[in-house]
Amino acid sequence: MNKHGGYFGENTKEVMDFSVNVNPLGPSEKLIKELKDKLNTIIRYPEIDGETSKNILAEYLSIHPEEIILGNGATELIYLFARALKPKKVLIIEPTFTEYRRAFEMTESDIYSYISRETNDFCWHKEELLKEIRKIKPEVIVLCNPNNPTGVFMDKSEIENILIKMEDIKATIFIDESFIDFTDKESSISLIREYPIYILRSMTKFYAIPGLRLGYGIGNKNIISRLNEMKEPWTLNALALGSTPKLLEDKEYRKEVMNWYTREKEFLYKELKGIRYLDVFSSEGNFFLCKLKKSNAKELKTRLLKENINIRTCEDFLSLDDRYIRLAVRSREDNIKLITALKEILINEI
Amino acid sequence: MNKHGGYFGENTKEVMDFSVNVNPLGPSEKLIKELKDKLNTIIRYPEIDGETSKNILAEYLSIHPEEIILGNGATELIYLFARALKPKKVLIIEPTFTEYRRAFEMTESDIYSYISRETNDFCWHKEELLKEIRKIKPEVIVLCNPNNPTGVFMDKSEIENILIKMEDIKATIFIDESFIDFTDKESSISLIREYPIYILRSMTKFYAIPGLRLGYGIGNKNIISRLNEMKEPWTLNALALGSTPKLLEDKEYRKEVMNWYTREKEFLYKELKGIRYLDVFSSEGNFFLCKLKKSNAKELKTRLLKENINIRTCEDFLSLDDRYIRLAVRSREDNIKLITALKEILINEI
Repeated sequence: MNKHGGYFGENTKEVMDFSVNVNPLGPSEKLIKELKDKLNTIIRYPEIDGETSKNILAEYLSIHPEEIILGNGATELIYLFARALKPKKVLIIEPTFTEYRRAFEMTESDIYSYISRETNDFCWHKEELLKEIRKIKPEVIVLCNPNNPTGVFMDKSEIENILIKMEDIKATIFIDESFIDFTDKESSISLIREYPIYILRSMTKFYAIPGLRLGYGIGNKNIISRLNEMKEPWTLNALALGSTPKLLEDKEYRKEVMNWYTREKEFLYKELKGIRYLDVFSSEGNFFLCKLKKSNAKELKTRLLKENINIRTCEDFLSLDDRYIRLAVRSREDNIKLITALKEILINEI
Repeated sequence: MNKHGGYFGENTKEVMDFSVNVNPLGPSEKLIKELKDKLNTIIRYPEIDGETSKNILAEYLSIHPEEIILGNGATELIYLFARALKPKKVLIIEPTFTEYRRAFEMTESDIYSYISRETNDFCWHKEELLKEIRKIKPEVIVLCNPNNPTGVFMDKSEIENILIKMEDIKATIFIDESFIDFTDKESSISLIREYPIYILRSMTKFYAIPGLRLGYGIGNKNIISRLNEMKEPWTLNALALGSTPKLLEDKEYRKEVMNWYTREKEFLYKELKGIRYLDVFSSEGNFFLCKLKKSNAKELKTRLLKENINIRTCEDFLSLDDRYIRLAVRSREDNIKLITALKEILINEI
């Protein structure tokens, strides 16, 4: 059963799916054309570890190919990281994406949580976090940055500060940057040679290709080689691998998407702010966490589905409950429909 | 590094690749058309566990959807099976596909081997095998059927006979039927409700879609549910999932491929038989294991590559060495080129 976002009901085509954090503009036409031209690549095995794409990515990111590992979506690399490091103790910074916890449950790690407080707008209290790290002494710390579902971001300088202060702990920080393409914030990639960090990247969200399955991990050679030892062969399909160069070279698409997002994110945020019966938290992601003041998220979801609108309820995120929903930014038209429906439903619930 | 078959060198387009056990006729045109029409499915997350495709497959195989699990290629399901069962002791019937061993090394299982003898044409000696099973008492037994690289097949009745005789051992037999589509032999699927067996199937080889990544596993509900507990989400890409119905409904393609194979396999076998400096073993797969009487496989591979022919050397298969090569059946034209080159090279080596 799907506990994540994503609508797979009967009206798949008609439903405006605000539960999925994927760029609604869709992939670039150049990519679709490229895939059409490359369909015959499915008759051959993909490269066993995607070497060609890895080299292209390494050049794009100005790092060594030995510092990259490709994944069948970012998800493969979460589970692979857990299996390769098999830490005794993991500290997950919550509330966050639920697959981290599941991955470390499978490696039978002891899982600890540092929970960011709503009273602090879900921002992380660095001193408190450091204290927790010192107390628990985890081998792995998991940070989603920007965080799903809260949208909170920790700057590179703050991360480096934590890394310096916890040097004696020797913990590896796992930083999931799956949503970083949607912000103008700086990635932590430049820290990989100095500190034990492992950075996860997804091509799914920004490039609007969740069906292709393409993600990558970045870390120092030592970490990446540990992951490669446990990596399963041929996990990336030929079309995902084949699309890498086209995706990276398309600066125009990236610019267009960013311009569009800046505009539409601001619009949606403002409109959500204007709804009395709901609190919206500011976000560095392409989505907003909202808190319903008096309504129940599941009921709201059911009501909205009647209007062909799907939302993500958040009761399965640690420390959140049935008052929270997550809304992705969609087209102006869809966003207006959402706002109208929300206003109508929420005002009547009171 | 790729230890398996598959040529990824400079002349990728020109090289006749006999090292890869994939149907050289390529996928059906209907499939390629379908994929073209369905390219826009990449803008959505694939179903988390491929439910729709699972239902279609279940109907096709006349079993319950709860008796099937889908994989990102059969490979995912080898590793997942190892992780889900985490057996203390595994008995692998060798020489065989090397990923089984790697999967069970990762779960830190004690790995035992039953090695079929060349003097017996690599056929399995059932009484001897049973004796080994009784001695070792493994929790899992791995059988590739037809076996890669020997092409040997164990009939369903023989498998059932072994299952009956080892009932007190309570071992699960893992049967990899990735190559069964190429024979007219009966699958062991009908045994899943009576015995603890887990059957692996690949769509890669017969349907000529190694780049798509599509495989499935079949077993009783108990086994499949144990696998589902450990399964990672979204492992199958949207195009692989979307192609399932088209692949299964295309009876014509299957018939065409089988007719072609019957003819070309016989031709290649006869021609290989006619080469004095080489022994060829009969095979139920779409490939032949051959033993060079006086030459070295690696040298032969290097020589053949100059003729744009790639072959699989077999030194990494347990009990085989640098005298063995594996040759896939290709087009008549390619097969003739291979035979001509083999004759020329081998006669001069003597």
